[in-house]
Amino acid sequence: MKARIKLLDVLSGRYSVLISEEDAREAKLHPDDLVKLEAGKKIVYGSVVISNMIESGEIGISRDILELHNFSEGETVNVIPAGTPESVRYIKKKMHGEKLRKVEIESIVRDIVDRKLRDIEISAFVTSLEINGLDMDEIAALTIAMAETGDMLDIDRKPIMDVHSIGGVPGNKTNILVVPIVAATGLTIPKTSSRAITSAAGTADVVEVFANVTFTLDEIKRIVEKVGACLVWGGALNLAPADDITIKSERTLSVDPTGLMLASIMSKKYAMGSQYVLIDIPTGKGVKVETIDQARALSRDFIELGKRLGQYVEVAITYGGQPIGHTVGPALEAREALSALQSGKGPGSLIEKATGLAGILLEMGGVAPAGMGKKMAKEILQSGKAWEKMREIIEAQGGNPDIKLEEIPIGDKTYTFTAPSSGYVTGIDNRAITAIARTAGAPEDKGAGVELYVKVGEKIKEGDPLFTIYAEHEARLDQAIVLARRTEPIKIEGMVLQRIGNI
Amino acid sequence: MKARIKLLDVLSGRYSVLISEEDAREAKLHPDDLVKLEAGKKIVYGSVVISNMIESGEIGISRDILELHNFSEGETVNVIPAGTPESVRYIKKKMHGEKLRKVEIESIVRDIVDRKLRDIEISAFVTSLEINGLDMDEIAALTIAMAETGDMLDIDRKPIMDVHSIGGVPGNKTNILVVPIVAATGLTIPKTSSRAITSAAGTADVVEVFANVTFTLDEIKRIVEKVGACLVWGGALNLAPADDITIKSERTLSVDPTGLMLASIMSKKYAMGSQYVLIDIPTGKGVKVETIDQARALSRDFIELGKRLGQYVEVAITYGGQPIGHTVGPALEAREALSALQSGKGPGSLIEKATGLAGILLEMGGVAPAGMGKKMAKEILQSGKAWEKMREIIEAQGGNPDIKLEEIPIGDKTYTFTAPSSGYVTGIDNRAITAIARTAGAPEDKGAGVELYVKVGEKIKEGDPLFTIYAEHEARLDQAIVLARRTEPIKIEGMVLQRIGNI
Repeated sequence: MKARIKLLDVLSGRYSVLISEEDAREAKLHPDDLVKLEAGKKIVYGSVVISNMIESGEIGISRDILELHNFSEGETVNVIPAGTPESVRYIKKKMHGEKLRKVEIESIVRDIVDRKLRDIEISAFVTSLEINGLDMDEIAALTIAMAETGDMLDIDRKPIMDVHSIGGVPGNKTNILVVPIVAATGLTIPKTSSRAITSAAGTADVVEVFANVTFTLDEIKRIVEKVGACLVWGGALNLAPADDITIKSERTLSVDPTGLMLASIMSKKYAMGSQYVLIDIPTGKGVKVETIDQARALSRDFIELGKRLGQYVEVAITYGGQPIGHTVGPALEAREALSALQSGKGPGSLIEKATGLAGILLEMGGVAPAGMGKKMAKEILQSGKAWEKMREIIEAQGGNPDIKLEEIPIGDKTYTFTAPSSGYVTGIDNRAITAIARTAGAPEDKGAGVELYVKVGEKIKEGDPLFTIYAEHEARLDQAIVLARRTEPIKIEGMVLQRIGNI
Repeated sequence: MKARIKLLDVLSGRYSVLISEEDAREAKLHPDDLVKLEAGKKIVYGSVVISNMIESGEIGISRDILELHNFSEGETVNVIPAGTPESVRYIKKKMHGEKLRKVEIESIVRDIVDRKLRDIEISAFVTSLEINGLDMDEIAALTIAMAETGDMLDIDRKPIMDVHSIGGVPGNKTNILVVPIVAATGLTIPKTSSRAITSAAGTADVVEVFANVTFTLDEIKRIVEKVGACLVWGGALNLAPADDITIKSERTLSVDPTGLMLASIMSKKYAMGSQYVLIDIPTGKGVKVETIDQARALSRDFIELGKRLGQYVEVAITYGGQPIGHTVGPALEAREALSALQSGKGPGSLIEKATGLAGILLEMGGVAPAGMGKKMAKEILQSGKAWEKMREIIEAQGGNPDIKLEEIPIGDKTYTFTAPSSGYVTGIDNRAITAIARTAGAPEDKGAGVELYVKVGEKIKEGDPLFTIYAEHEARLDQAIVLARRTEPIKIEGMVLQRIGNI
């Protein structure tokens, strides 16, 4: 059938196409049927919603579709019932334990990006991967297909370095130090980061406190060609868009099949043209990778996948058993990272990790002799050269390079927990710290978060401050306090952990 | 947050809740987030759609929700963000190959029915079942949970018989004969049927040609207590509603995990209070169960599951390699079934199968001695007693018991295919016949379908009529003719099956 477009101002989270009851009956369309909309060369797929808010002869299309395609109101489109996409057969092949061929993986990825596959099919794909896995041939094909169905960056500087931390450890502002240290030596490092999904602050959330992070790929090319580095939000780019779609199923099910995780990370590096990639795998209780054995297995996969992609990959297994540095939350972390860059000093966990990672990159990039990278990285940090480079990056990204730490606003609603007894800190619960910071408002409320005054192993006295919660809103502070009381994120040896009985 | 309800006249195929951009930001809600709507004792879950068609302070709820719950426009509801349902953990347990406990299965089923689980989670569940399966403990728990989360029938007559054919064979109007034969002996048989999903006519579609099939459970109780039988549409009842929801994922993926299929069928029998259940498993090329071995394995499962449910189950493995009788399509099948009941005669494939199945039920119900059931069934059919009972059923279901076959309208747009050469019929392609009937308009167009003049093994001469396509609309007839030319559903020995080259 042909129909005139009517814009519907809705964001449904999926592609919806509203059709009148009369037209649906005539065209034998049912709720949730897949249809193809065609106008000249423009093609988009959507799911049928039947509605009497739409006249016969009209078709309502949601803002989701308009935002990505160039349809306009009143335009006439062809509405064609779309059958089952071919790629569903390949998803079923994987469901039944078979190995997929390259063209089959490409077909699945293309149909995901074209929105021909929807929640049901994508969830079946993710679930099949979680159960039956992918071998390295399949992972390499998936990675390349994911990169090539999106935009790719082509920077006229070589070599291109990159660093990626597998998420999970709170307060991990490390790469905000690593990038300017590496770039200060003349190496190129176009770093894209994510926003927080389940954490309290992604690197992009932190950088956004003092610079813009949302750019087009062309703008990033200009920034990187000028200053040799960037610290931008990857989500604004059309890098490996299939990943942005499958992540919805992964998050809903809280699964993260290894093959898909590898492809997700490496497809973005591949799309950015990265040649030397350092993967940081924080390991410890309460992060994504809990044991050294898991971390080692994953390392081998990253290195092998890199070879298939023509990238040189190294992996650093780092300690992730407690937060990095003292702060968790966008503004608090921005202050801590910038302070370290400006002064060359900071919490050991942050400085050692940042210079350690940067040092490996300097050696990979050939600017430091083997074994000398960390020393050189520390010198660059302490000499102020890293801060100089960071000022260039901030300026190139539209921020104020003369920013003063005390100008960064943090939440003025605060509450400090103190030690209920003397003893040694035996553990800091990553998940609880993240949950408290998020409950206090992070990452949406930039000033919300947690500041920690102690680290595992420290000796403390009763009444010593343990941590402060910052919030922008009183109600959120109160909720975070309740959660902190319940979860007791800092364990002290000799402390009563739980009291059961009459209160 | 609190919000006033605004009705949205949409059928989205899922439960949608429209919220203004402003309210969504304030409440930290994102597209597709799950929210709980609460007003007094009324509770319903829905998925967030962000829309500027809604004012702040209002909440748009779709007709899907209003149809099942008693919310009214202008009513104030509490909108509460709902976290991840507990049952997602159990779905993941099954994903990881573990056996589920009874309470875990109950939790999944309850959350499906409450719409707390959506496409992503349900698809993950279905995929996990397809891959990892269920053992008999799990299947029994699933069956009972599915029945008990819906309505159940309590009929004051014993024993209660039931019959169910596993789908797939076209033209299977058999149970329209079985039910009145069985009921004519005084046994009770409250038969619910489905409408066509992928076939050209479900039993409910056929019966609807000459009687109503949509009733409430109370009405069915009255009908059955009066005439001892019914032939109604199960979909209008709230029997095992979880099944109606999971079927969407199964259909999209075209998978049918055995455990889920068993639970789906038997939960509805359990909810109807059936004590003696006969399962008909048509077996042959182009139907759901293609080999005798598969049919035998499935039979054992049905019988074992019946034991767990306190039901006595028998299974008949029947020949499903070609259509039953001569007709496919609602009105054509209605004519054929009623003709057989009125005259006691009809195509051998229909009469033999119907009296065979009815005979087993008569023996199960204790009204025929062992080995004498089929003979008794045939006598009941030929004596006109089955037709007398059918007249009672038709009348009780609001139809005309004096219906004349020629009064049943069939499509007046017809096209007859003739044999291109002489020879023996070597095969009739079930899937092609179904596809042709559906393309001609069945089941929506009641008069559309296919009439077959030959059966496998028959000798035919060039020019003999093979089958006629009936349609209500010229365009659909033309499409069906094209499809029939392409698929050649009737194979004749010696016929050129495919000609490749210049035409």
